[in-house]
Amino acid sequence: MAGNTTGNLFKVTTFGSSHGTALGAVVDGCPAGLELSSEDIQRELDRRRPGTSKITTPRGETDQIELLSGIFQDKTDGTPITGVVYNKDADSSAYEPFRNKPRPGHGDYTWTAKYGFYDYRGGGRGSGRTTIGHVIGGAVAKKLLEQLNIRVVSHVTQVGDVKAQHVAYSNIEEYAGQNMVRCADQKAAKIMEDKILDAKEKGDSVGGVVETIAFGVPAGLGEPVFDKLDADLAKALMGIGAVKGVEIGFGFQLAESTASVTNDEYYLEEKQIKTTTNTSGGIVGGISNGMPIVTRMAVKPTPSISTIQKTVDLEKMEETEIQIKGRHDPCICPRVTPVAESAVAMVLADHLLRSGFINPRHI
Amino acid sequence: MAGNTTGNLFKVTTFGSSHGTALGAVVDGCPAGLELSSEDIQRELDRRRPGTSKITTPRGETDQIELLSGIFQDKTDGTPITGVVYNKDADSSAYEPFRNKPRPGHGDYTWTAKYGFYDYRGGGRGSGRTTIGHVIGGAVAKKLLEQLNIRVVSHVTQVGDVKAQHVAYSNIEEYAGQNMVRCADQKAAKIMEDKILDAKEKGDSVGGVVETIAFGVPAGLGEPVFDKLDADLAKALMGIGAVKGVEIGFGFQLAESTASVTNDEYYLEEKQIKTTTNTSGGIVGGISNGMPIVTRMAVKPTPSISTIQKTVDLEKMEETEIQIKGRHDPCICPRVTPVAESAVAMVLADHLLRSGFINPRHI
Amino acid sequence: MAGNTTGNLFKVTTFGSSHGTALGAVVDGCPAGLELSSEDIQRELDRRRPGTSKITTPRGETDQIELLSGIFQDKTDGTPITGVVYNKDADSSAYEPFRNKPRPGHGDYTWTAKYGFYDYRGGGRGSGRTTIGHVIGGAVAKKLLEQLNIRVVSHVTQVGDVKAQHVAYSNIEEYAGQNMVRCADQKAAKIMEDKILDAKEKGDSVGGVVETIAFGVPAGLGEPVFDKLDADLAKALMGIGAVKGVEIGFGFQLAESTASVTNDEYYLEEKQIKTTTNTSGGIVGGISNGMPIVTRMAVKPTPSISTIQKTVDLEKMEETEIQIKGRHDPCICPRVTPVAESAVAMVLADHLLRSGFINPRHI
Amino acid sequence: MAGNTTGNLFKVTTFGSSHGTALGAVVDGCPAGLELSSEDIQRELDRRRPGTSKITTPRGETDQIELLSGIFQDKTDGTPITGVVYNKDADSSAYEPFRNKPRPGHGDYTWTAKYGFYDYRGGGRGSGRTTIGHVIGGAVAKKLLEQLNIRVVSHVTQVGDVKAQHVAYSNIEEYAGQNMVRCADQKAAKIMEDKILDAKEKGDSVGGVVETIAFGVPAGLGEPVFDKLDADLAKALMGIGAVKGVEIGFGFQLAESTASVTNDEYYLEEKQIKTTTNTSGGIVGGISNGMPIVTRMAVKPTPSISTIQKTVDLEKMEETEIQIKGRHDPCICPRVTPVAESAVAMVLADHLLRSGFINPRHI
Repeated sequence: MAGNTTGNLFKVTTFGSSHGTALGAVVDGCPAGLELSSEDIQRELDRRRPGTSKITTPRGETDQIELLSGIFQDKTDGTPITGVVYNKDADSSAYEPFRNKPRPGHGDYTWTAKYGFYDYRGGGRGSGRTTIGHVIGGAVAKKLLEQLNIRVVSHVTQVGDVKAQHVAYSNIEEYAGQNMVRCADQKAAKIMEDKILDAKEKGDSVGGVVETIAFGVPAGLGEPVFDKLDADLAKALMGIGAVKGVEIGFGFQLAESTASVTNDEYYLEEKQIKTTTNTSGGIVGGISNGMPIVTRMAVKPTPSISTIQKTVDLEKMEETEIQIKGRHDPCICPRVTPVAESAVAMVLADHLLRSGFINPRHI
Repeated sequence: MAGNTTGNLFKVTTFGSSHGTALGAVVDGCPAGLELSSEDIQRELDRRRPGTSKITTPRGETDQIELLSGIFQDKTDGTPITGVVYNKDADSSAYEPFRNKPRPGHGDYTWTAKYGFYDYRGGGRGSGRTTIGHVIGGAVAKKLLEQLNIRVVSHVTQVGDVKAQHVAYSNIEEYAGQNMVRCADQKAAKIMEDKILDAKEKGDSVGGVVETIAFGVPAGLGEPVFDKLDADLAKALMGIGAVKGVEIGFGFQLAESTASVTNDEYYLEEKQIKTTTNTSGGIVGGISNGMPIVTRMAVKPTPSISTIQKTVDLEKMEETEIQIKGRHDPCICPRVTPVAESAVAMVLADHLLRSGFINPRHI
Repeated sequence: MAGNTTGNLFKVTTFGSSHGTALGAVVDGCPAGLELSSEDIQRELDRRRPGTSKITTPRGETDQIELLSGIFQDKTDGTPITGVVYNKDADSSAYEPFRNKPRPGHGDYTWTAKYGFYDYRGGGRGSGRTTIGHVIGGAVAKKLLEQLNIRVVSHVTQVGDVKAQHVAYSNIEEYAGQNMVRCADQKAAKIMEDKILDAKEKGDSVGGVVETIAFGVPAGLGEPVFDKLDADLAKALMGIGAVKGVEIGFGFQLAESTASVTNDEYYLEEKQIKTTTNTSGGIVGGISNGMPIVTRMAVKPTPSISTIQKTVDLEKMEETEIQIKGRHDPCICPRVTPVAESAVAMVLADHLLRSGFINPRHI
Repeated sequence: MAGNTTGNLFKVTTFGSSHGTALGAVVDGCPAGLELSSEDIQRELDRRRPGTSKITTPRGETDQIELLSGIFQDKTDGTPITGVVYNKDADSSAYEPFRNKPRPGHGDYTWTAKYGFYDYRGGGRGSGRTTIGHVIGGAVAKKLLEQLNIRVVSHVTQVGDVKAQHVAYSNIEEYAGQNMVRCADQKAAKIMEDKILDAKEKGDSVGGVVETIAFGVPAGLGEPVFDKLDADLAKALMGIGAVKGVEIGFGFQLAESTASVTNDEYYLEEKQIKTTTNTSGGIVGGISNGMPIVTRMAVKPTPSISTIQKTVDLEKMEETEIQIKGRHDPCICPRVTPVAESAVAMVLADHLLRSGFINPRHI
């Protein structure tokens, strides 16, 4: 129990479910004196909001943030910042058929196995809507990171078997913002879009890969041997629904290489120590080295599909079949990008405080 | 600071460095009444011990465990279990040349950036020897898991570009134990061995992949939304030195697939709910579903190689070169297998306690 | 930073300030399946609500609870329970004079020293109103304790120099409920009431002692050596605003005694092990022994008084004087009783889960 | 379970029991670069060592510290500092009679109720010897506090009904060091000594009060609303064996007073904000105000006495009697003073780090 709080000094507690009254987050540990407005959070929530393009679910939620605490005269006051988003367009009727029939790929069965029963309406707290809490926490974290000129950017690098070409770091944010797939490689983006629409038409869904890069992170973040920066990033990213794999830097490619090829050698640039390559993704020995921090996560295809699927009736304890209608995302990757940024931003904010790069009392 | 403790209810704190007086671990939270002896821990330590084959470092350490507390009449007594291993064969001389010259791929520079100076002797606490603490904690965790007939098995599935063929779960432990590479695919093991010896000869090193499977884990483990079982496993595995990627189940393969192919459908087997496939690796929605839990981690090539490498002299702040002699592992994968088992076992022990599957007071 | 979460498995995070938008709490870790309604929480909030008698502040707050999450079909669903109370009658005007002039005895100065500035309106988060969060968490904890027939009762045993006579445990709750001072000794209650009204008339305030007793707590709660049950109770009670002392059992009286007098001897009652006396207050060696758990806390006089007081103008950094008008409690003890019950109930709920007396998954 | 770690950033984990192999502590989170030697720790251990005067137990332990990790070139290196003390003079024979007969006032019964059985030898981990771990952690904390010129001093202010007169803060440490009772009031010390020897002769024991004062603590320490500085101090002090009451500042005296008398008014002294009185004990609203931090704890008489006492035979489940021989302290207060200092020092070190007054990476 009690797994809804993350972070040590920058502590975020989230709550709420897909069809409950509201969702939200309490952000504790943000220093006082940080300028913060509802708009700062709304901007990020709008990026994960559904119904914004033809490749996302049509569920019509405005996801308006309401700040309940933590702000005094437009600045954080050192006390918990609480943001709430009320559910407006929850339609539970579509879920009645699954009351006792767990949907393959969803948490319905595992949550029932744990809690004895389950909020079958839209996945309850197992729903992707719970990432509203992540984004609220991430929005505050990002504002804090801005103080140190740290920027976190996510983009889609793969959809199904379509892989994006490498794009210069400086262009990723801009280019990825120019298409609904949020892929910085415009050519690939178009192909990805077709792939997603094709899956949508078939009532199927497709997976992908989301890369998140943090620029401007100082060397010295991370607390070996257990709270290494890469370890905490891995936990934060793997904890996002539908994520089944995480890489730092070259990740699994390194398994195929030799050290003579992959060791990042050191050199000096304007008295700054840098590495000629960045196979480590900016983290060595669990501590940041000042280079860009690069993470990638594997996102599975959203399990809600309209083909008939085999499952078990938990009440009658007999095998049965279900067919999911509802409103779903044929590929969740685009909408997951702000969530990945939030997850990384929260980890960085926590470690910046733990390592003393930010005054925990006030800006 | 303070990142050397892991777990919430099964809490393991480790200490010690490569060339210090000793290394060890304090295991707090193990229920009383569990039969535990030094042998139980020594057995696991021997599996990670160096100098056991021609593909590991010749550093001659017996790694004898000494139990300082927590055992009363051959059983745990509910108080912290402390195990210590004294360093015997530390040879610091070989490291003098690197006093101010960080070795590429090692934590030398990042630790210095953080702590202001660095124990250059064998990597200090950044050394792989710190995993002695992991293995002590893991050995206690494994004994606890035995009570619930849960078994954790690691094996090497890839070395460089050599990938092992799939081996029946029931044979993995036995087969992997029959070769020094700890690969269950005997044919591949031989090729891997040659690959490692070839790298060793060249003064180079090679990476690989280690798969860890947990059998017999009950459905219901995991604490969404942040302390999901897969999230905690990802943190534990990514936190092991040299690991740069983690997968659960089909991991990155899922990114290329569609839900119609990858959704694990449910069926009944002797009144037990099972899934026809296990692409999820036994974890859905962050909670275990009763199927085998499957994880894989990407291990980078050990950075200590004998070729000349570029680095920076931190004292003179000028570029320079180094050549590493010392005693090293051309491929760390085989020795990492017990560490991976330990990391997974500790996470499972913690979650079994958190979810109430084990009486926290006494067995 | 980040000190607004308490508990390990029964985790309560509170937020909000005296004159902000709202106050509330997120309760994480409550098992699923517990019947819980807004009424269960409202009942407790009404007991701490202001304006209920002539010895409390006239601030007119209805303190209506709104549940945002965690309940499904009238039962807890294993996810975070969020309760919010909106401020309705905040009147900041009265506080303008103290914008830069810290009120003696209040946290104004210390909070400013920490956060750089301060929400001078009604004490901001330093206000007693923040205990609304404690009471929400306590209300959920009490419902959980009911499952094990554990009852927590607070009553006022001293106001100024007026001390209550001992009252049989079985009568405390009933008798204390019959007077506005919440003192079980009806005779003393009348004198206490006069003392409080006398102080009120003089624009002064008076302190007191609140005793909290937990009945039905099983033997075996507490986690030595640091998380002892009495240690956690001491932290929870000392953490309540205005509390400056905590005792367990005979407390400071024991300092004057000898062991031959104070040792609680064991005997058998219907095969149950009990102690002939209870000087230990139900906790020995940091672990409960099955006897009633008895705590007492010293409550200082509420610092808001109308006499002229010396202070310092933080802006001009010169000595000055202030006179507080506003609306205040001449003795906070009666209203603190439900807060003390909540603090104790939350600690017990957490330890019952930590010690495995409650299934953490579901009731 | 898992209650043997304290602190968030300055994290201390202790282990070991009275008659086991060894006791010790792992201190994690101490910044690198702090000069620290075995002597620094031994000095503190010697102050709590038994057998140093005729009013302490004759158990002959030298309590020699051995440092296993965390020190590099005479300075802390940012990794866990581990200190171990081996038991040398454990005599278990005296405890055989209590194998199944819990001693009144000791944790024997409660630990058995929790763990199913109990290390009856000298109280196992329930023994006062476990405070060796506290003192190791405290010794490191004190070294860290020295960097900020913070001093922590404990002295005995009461033994039985003998109360010490107030002594000027500047003289307490010196005067208390001049007598075996560690009371700064030399006259009272003599009477206390007689009282203790008188109790010893009768095979009885006597309680007392220990006051601990921290000088030089900056304003701004404490994390409301739950991790207030006074709340954490209360937990740390109440967690020490035999402590049954804790006061901050005037504590229980405040319950009898009115705010017009007890409010600490502010004034300026060399541009520093101070209070004319210090009834608050240096903590207001849970945050330090820059004045000396004053705590007092009530210590119960050590329960080991030679008179015949009633108890229950846990095996036969029948009432019986025991008589304790063994070697004991007729008054534990003097030996508890360094433990109280350690408890306070650890809390301050943790909060100095949490509030950013110390660079967590290195001195």
